[in-house]
Amino acid sequence: MKKQNRFKQITVDANEAAASVAFRLSEVIAIYPITPSTPMAELSDEWASKGQRNLWDDIPTVCQMQSEGGVAGALHGALMSGSLTTTFTASQGLLLMMPNMYKIAGELTPFCMHVTARSLATHALSIFGDHSDVMACRQTGFAFLVSNSVQEAHDMAAIAHIATLRSRIPFLHFFDGFRTSHEINHLELLDDATLKSLVPEKSLQRFRNNALTPDHPSVRGTAQNPDVFFQAREAANIFYDAVPEIVRETMVDFAKATGRNYDLCEYVGAPDATKVIIIMGSGAETVEQTSQWLNTREGGKTGVLKIRLFRPFPIEDMLKSLPSSVEKIAVLDRTKEPGAIGEPLYQDVVTAIYEGQKAGFNPEVIGGRYGLGSKEFTPAMVKAVFDHLSEAQPKRHFTVGINDDVTQLSLSYDPDFDIEPNNVFRAVFFGLGSDGTVGANKNSIKIIGAKTDNFAQAYFVYDSKKSGAMTVSHLRFGPDPIRAPYLISSAQFVGCHQFSFLHKYDVLDTAATGAVCLLNSNIPADRLWDQLPLPVQTTIIEKEIKLYTIDAYEVARISGMGGRINTIMQTCFFAISGVLDADEAIAHIKGAIEKTYANKGLEVVRKNFAAVDASLAQLESVTIPQAITSDSMVGQEIPDEATDFIKTVTRLMLENKGDLLPVSAFPVDGVWPTGTSKYEKRNVGQIIPSWDPAVCIQCNKCVLVCPHAAIRGKFYPEEAIQEAPDSFQSVKFRSSEFPGNRFTIQVAPEDCTGCSLCVQVCPAKNKADPKRKAINMTAQPPIREQEVANYVYFLDLPNPKRTELGIDVKGTQFREPLFEYSGAC
Amino acid sequence: MKKQNRFKQITVDANEAAASVAFRLSEVIAIYPITPSTPMAELSDEWASKGQRNLWDDIPTVCQMQSEGGVAGALHGALMSGSLTTTFTASQGLLLMMPNMYKIAGELTPFCMHVTARSLATHALSIFGDHSDVMACRQTGFAFLVSNSVQEAHDMAAIAHIATLRSRIPFLHFFDGFRTSHEINHLELLDDATLKSLVPEKSLQRFRNNALTPDHPSVRGTAQNPDVFFQAREAANIFYDAVPEIVRETMVDFAKATGRNYDLCEYVGAPDATKVIIIMGSGAETVEQTSQWLNTREGGKTGVLKIRLFRPFPIEDMLKSLPSSVEKIAVLDRTKEPGAIGEPLYQDVVTAIYEGQKAGFNPEVIGGRYGLGSKEFTPAMVKAVFDHLSEAQPKRHFTVGINDDVTQLSLSYDPDFDIEPNNVFRAVFFGLGSDGTVGANKNSIKIIGAKTDNFAQAYFVYDSKKSGAMTVSHLRFGPDPIRAPYLISSAQFVGCHQFSFLHKYDVLDTAATGAVCLLNSNIPADRLWDQLPLPVQTTIIEKEIKLYTIDAYEVARISGMGGRINTIMQTCFFAISGVLDADEAIAHIKGAIEKTYANKGLEVVRKNFAAVDASLAQLESVTIPQAITSDSMVGQEIPDEATDFIKTVTRLMLENKGDLLPVSAFPVDGVWPTGTSKYEKRNVGQIIPSWDPAVCIQCNKCVLVCPHAAIRGKFYPEEAIQEAPDSFQSVKFRSSEFPGNRFTIQVAPEDCTGCSLCVQVCPAKNKADPKRKAINMTAQPPIREQEVANYVYFLDLPNPKRTELGIDVKGTQFREPLFEYSGAC
Repeated sequence: MKKQNRFKQITVDANEAAASVAFRLSEVIAIYPITPSTPMAELSDEWASKGQRNLWDDIPTVCQMQSEGGVAGALHGALMSGSLTTTFTASQGLLLMMPNMYKIAGELTPFCMHVTARSLATHALSIFGDHSDVMACRQTGFAFLVSNSVQEAHDMAAIAHIATLRSRIPFLHFFDGFRTSHEINHLELLDDATLKSLVPEKSLQRFRNNALTPDHPSVRGTAQNPDVFFQAREAANIFYDAVPEIVRETMVDFAKATGRNYDLCEYVGAPDATKVIIIMGSGAETVEQTSQWLNTREGGKTGVLKIRLFRPFPIEDMLKSLPSSVEKIAVLDRTKEPGAIGEPLYQDVVTAIYEGQKAGFNPEVIGGRYGLGSKEFTPAMVKAVFDHLSEAQPKRHFTVGINDDVTQLSLSYDPDFDIEPNNVFRAVFFGLGSDGTVGANKNSIKIIGAKTDNFAQAYFVYDSKKSGAMTVSHLRFGPDPIRAPYLISSAQFVGCHQFSFLHKYDVLDTAATGAVCLLNSNIPADRLWDQLPLPVQTTIIEKEIKLYTIDAYEVARISGMGGRINTIMQTCFFAISGVLDADEAIAHIKGAIEKTYANKGLEVVRKNFAAVDASLAQLESVTIPQAITSDSMVGQEIPDEATDFIKTVTRLMLENKGDLLPVSAFPVDGVWPTGTSKYEKRNVGQIIPSWDPAVCIQCNKCVLVCPHAAIRGKFYPEEAIQEAPDSFQSVKFRSSEFPGNRFTIQVAPEDCTGCSLCVQVCPAKNKADPKRKAINMTAQPPIREQEVANYVYFLDLPNPKRTELGIDVKGTQFREPLFEYSGAC
Repeated sequence: MKKQNRFKQITVDANEAAASVAFRLSEVIAIYPITPSTPMAELSDEWASKGQRNLWDDIPTVCQMQSEGGVAGALHGALMSGSLTTTFTASQGLLLMMPNMYKIAGELTPFCMHVTARSLATHALSIFGDHSDVMACRQTGFAFLVSNSVQEAHDMAAIAHIATLRSRIPFLHFFDGFRTSHEINHLELLDDATLKSLVPEKSLQRFRNNALTPDHPSVRGTAQNPDVFFQAREAANIFYDAVPEIVRETMVDFAKATGRNYDLCEYVGAPDATKVIIIMGSGAETVEQTSQWLNTREGGKTGVLKIRLFRPFPIEDMLKSLPSSVEKIAVLDRTKEPGAIGEPLYQDVVTAIYEGQKAGFNPEVIGGRYGLGSKEFTPAMVKAVFDHLSEAQPKRHFTVGINDDVTQLSLSYDPDFDIEPNNVFRAVFFGLGSDGTVGANKNSIKIIGAKTDNFAQAYFVYDSKKSGAMTVSHLRFGPDPIRAPYLISSAQFVGCHQFSFLHKYDVLDTAATGAVCLLNSNIPADRLWDQLPLPVQTTIIEKEIKLYTIDAYEVARISGMGGRINTIMQTCFFAISGVLDADEAIAHIKGAIEKTYANKGLEVVRKNFAAVDASLAQLESVTIPQAITSDSMVGQEIPDEATDFIKTVTRLMLENKGDLLPVSAFPVDGVWPTGTSKYEKRNVGQIIPSWDPAVCIQCNKCVLVCPHAAIRGKFYPEEAIQEAPDSFQSVKFRSSEFPGNRFTIQVAPEDCTGCSLCVQVCPAKNKADPKRKAINMTAQPPIREQEVANYVYFLDLPNPKRTELGIDVKGTQFREPLFEYSGAC
């Protein structure tokens, strides 16, 4: 497939793709950013502040409210005044908008909102994607239009904004949170002229004319009594009846203008399929690809029916789209409604088939849940569903993607099943949150998308710990559009940007045979092999992995880049992956550097250029000796005294293998043991604070503010530290109430993330050196092992009794007691 | 049927019935009162403030929060601390609780909330009942238990509170807003011992043990990532699977303790029924009574299936309950979900039948909406549904209770179809909001319930105008339990407490042939006939109505009761209805008076006693001359220049005939013309304000605060009032900026409700009489016609130009301009 040329081709995520359309078609944008819709709100705000204009040459008014409840009120108000209005939200934020959604729909108001579908907090919060939030709003009277990919998020945004004007029914346009909203992929950008040509001027005028105005005043929001409410509620029926046809017409117009065809329901698969999966969202892409693979490679008679217009539910379209050969249908819902007979799409399909009963067309329908909270949904799982449909007595209700060893609802699947074509290059990068890995990879994929004929895709796995947690970047590119909304399981390139990951995580699990692995390590290439853990050595030999190494932190230091290794690792990736000619790649990287840092001055650009050049010089190939020389293992160290829960559940989660845990491993009600984070010695602070007892005024503010409780304070009897390590620091405790005590502020080096909040709040200035305080970030940390020993010693020091401190033991003081204020600030 | 004696028998509404149980089973009650659940919250607050105790001899903590959102947070917090917790809510209030409902359910928290199911604001607000609100929450993971009557609201409250402890799944217990919540009916009161015997001590202990406590700390509300969220979400399945059996067991225990049997689904009807209606809520009572009538009188083979446990949906129970003879099913939903294939209960039934497919059992299912916004649901409508099921091609989706002349979904019904047994006494009273009619009728029905062997029912129709609007009281009593949750259409007694109603409304429409009618009128009995409108004379003659009259306001005045006529009309009702022996009734009324007013002093009691005695003396029978002597008509006077909308829609609504309006009469989007209230001259103020120009400081505060815009202020050139009526008042305008003007504060007598807010804010004191101000309520209003003429004259006076007043004409000042402040206060 060739990239088209009529429209601009870019590589962006779905948030930007949808916001691009929403911004240009709106006059008022009320926001209260919530993950994962935040980028849509932030981009709109940024564009407006830069003076970017909508299709009518106006700058949209972007206003942030105090909550999503306020946003809903602002939307309603703006719409009543005849302003084209939009918003972006998800999850609980969407729930807060519901009361006004009923009103906006009841008043037949053209309006389109964009939702990055996200889970709702139940037994636990999840910031990740599923359809729980949008399904909670399906009864509000909104029309629902679904996008399954980045391009669709762009296209459906346009179709929804136009169809709402034509139909007067408000639209909720949604796509999968993170999996689509944060996936970077190829996009054919709708230009202003095309978008403008689709705007229905008459409908727009009707909307303007319906606005509240003193010129022809009217009343909205009356109170109606039992005599008339019901009749008036039925008066809108014809507008709902008209929606499917209006959306279809809009799609036809859209196809004429762009060449991209959509329909209310889209069937893809064998024309004589016997087994069909019905699904909405990004998973539809996976089902389509898998179904094609099965049909082509294994002679399967399978297909996928993608519901695109979910409300009003297009019964006739659905029934017409299904081949009459269909015998069995699995409906996949990305939500869970405990207590319902089945999830919503399943019940809709059952009802639709019941209502449309034709002689001889009575396929068996089963329903499954998948992908809750962004659980992976892979071709292997799709195959499992198709396989299950072949069974004589399939489960009426099932789950897929987990191991449910309690209610036995889950389907088992073969994790090694893979349908990815060989012409797709797949690379995985393990980085540390905030180390620049993700940003560099975003650059790389945009370079590849823009400068080569390749279609490119990138997806980034963070966890909710954000800064300082592991990030995994999944990059794909190849000659055909990439439609694989799931993680890479077999990569030709693995970048490991932190050497310590090799000891904690199974980094090479995703490496394909013959893959290239790039390591950031300060160990010279000729001594590296022996420092690798045993399982890593084994994997490298078995998978014939080619290993490269670079001391990126050293290169960064000598290039004047401080701790920023992103440009260096990016350069090495291009140098050894062979994606682009090395010289060409470096030219592009330097071009990107100039663009990014031009406004920071020539010196910054020069340093980056130096880093790029030094990278290539320092990159080394590691000779693989084909012999195991190590006995260290990979994984999390958990002490023996830990509970079984810690040893199994917590350990696997810390090792990035939580997916393997079965249902029975979990508490039924989300109740979790306390103190589990002490088993997660993250060791992510490159720079940590040191304490200067001579300067400290013992105010304990540093202790109070530390978000990770990595700064601790304690006073204790003088005699308690007779056997302290030499490097252990203490000072006389400044309290007349507790004489004869000493005092220590101690850093926990393994817990500290190096955020420096402690330094910021420290009020004690070092008179000898005004730049320094009682607590300072040390450019070179104190010898880490020594400080760890000091911390362990510190923990064992006696705690003052709460009663001594005047704290009521029956009170709610469950933390380590904070000291009374005893200094001056 | 005999009343049982083991439990106390009382006559209360469902709000009190449910609150009585909830209060006794709770320790924390977080509230934010919302119609129609308000009485539950207020009663709980009142009981707690009086020191009433729960089953554990504690006074529940009742706390009112800042919104329902805050309530939900408070509930969640109290539950986490191990407190038995409840709340009461409805409509938008319930929506605001949704985010926390997901969490409460996800954490498997025993909790029961009570919801008076109410409509949600869409094209218009409705404070009335349907299931839109509870249906919006059906996916939260709560269990749903439904009550169809006052007794059930009491019993299901207990069953829900107990089942939630046993199952750990939170319960939403609901009953129809107003129709059940505000219906007064017979109740067998659960005593403390019985209630206590049902509490599952072990489950309660488990709940206590799960509380957050420093003794064994745990974490709730963690954030989970894609690795584990899905598995952990499935871990609760077994708890949902267990709910139906737990509820069934609880119902069995309840039956043993009380003799009242309930089930998850309850089928009542012919064992060989071919046509069945499936329904939830008060409508189920109507269907049951109608089905029995049809089966008995017309050999019908009909039945009703009442779904009582709506979530988790009890598929097996539903299928088992249905006779295998059933061929056609109509599922009735009291909600509307535009864009869905069908309403939720319909889709559940279709899915359940699909899943439970047995050979040969494949009844046809259709779905209908009824009763939105408390639209009446009568036996006639039930018959229409059963009749429709007999048609060869019934509508798959229909409405009943309205005339849908647009989308033709409605079923027609015979409004004269009536199934009420002759042994039920039915009385209808027309009163004015705040005139005491409703309160007196509540007393009457409680006297009848307590002092006779009758079962009694009362329902009150207000409109949302509250004070000063018409109230219609519907009272039934008879030897059998009253199960008729619909208005009286054929009454043996009609009380009309305001003579003016006869000219506006078709008061005698509901009168049965031979009915007794009691009129409050100041026209002597011998001159009354000629003052009746023509249609009223006709109806009286045709229906052979016996007419009584009393000048209740005069009796009230001479008894020292001021304008309170309630006791007087109540006495007359008992005197002429023959419900009780007159002497006995009067003794009971006096007993009620003593009880109610004892704390207000003997004098008040004495005055009331005098009113009762005087009533009987003043009550007169009117001789019906059998000849039409009037030519005045009944209805609203609408001027010719009014729009067609006013002449049809507004007029019928003002005449209390809005039910007759078809769907086509209404705007599709709730947009309403402005200024319609000017056609509704309510004339409800018995006492209205008068203005004293000599005292007035022209601050215009009275104008500002009047909620009905019935106090107007204006200045105008002196020459403008040369031809003013003699009684028109004016004074020199106190403004140096606008010399040569006069000023008037004018009351609109027909719009004023007599609320006296104007008097309360008036800062100008009459120096001669310190009790009087510049605006005063006049005990005897100025001659009303004269004041109306003054008001009309006032409206025609020239308005000062906005520009003169310095008001920007482009601004948003669309009201009559308020004057600049020109006085001192």
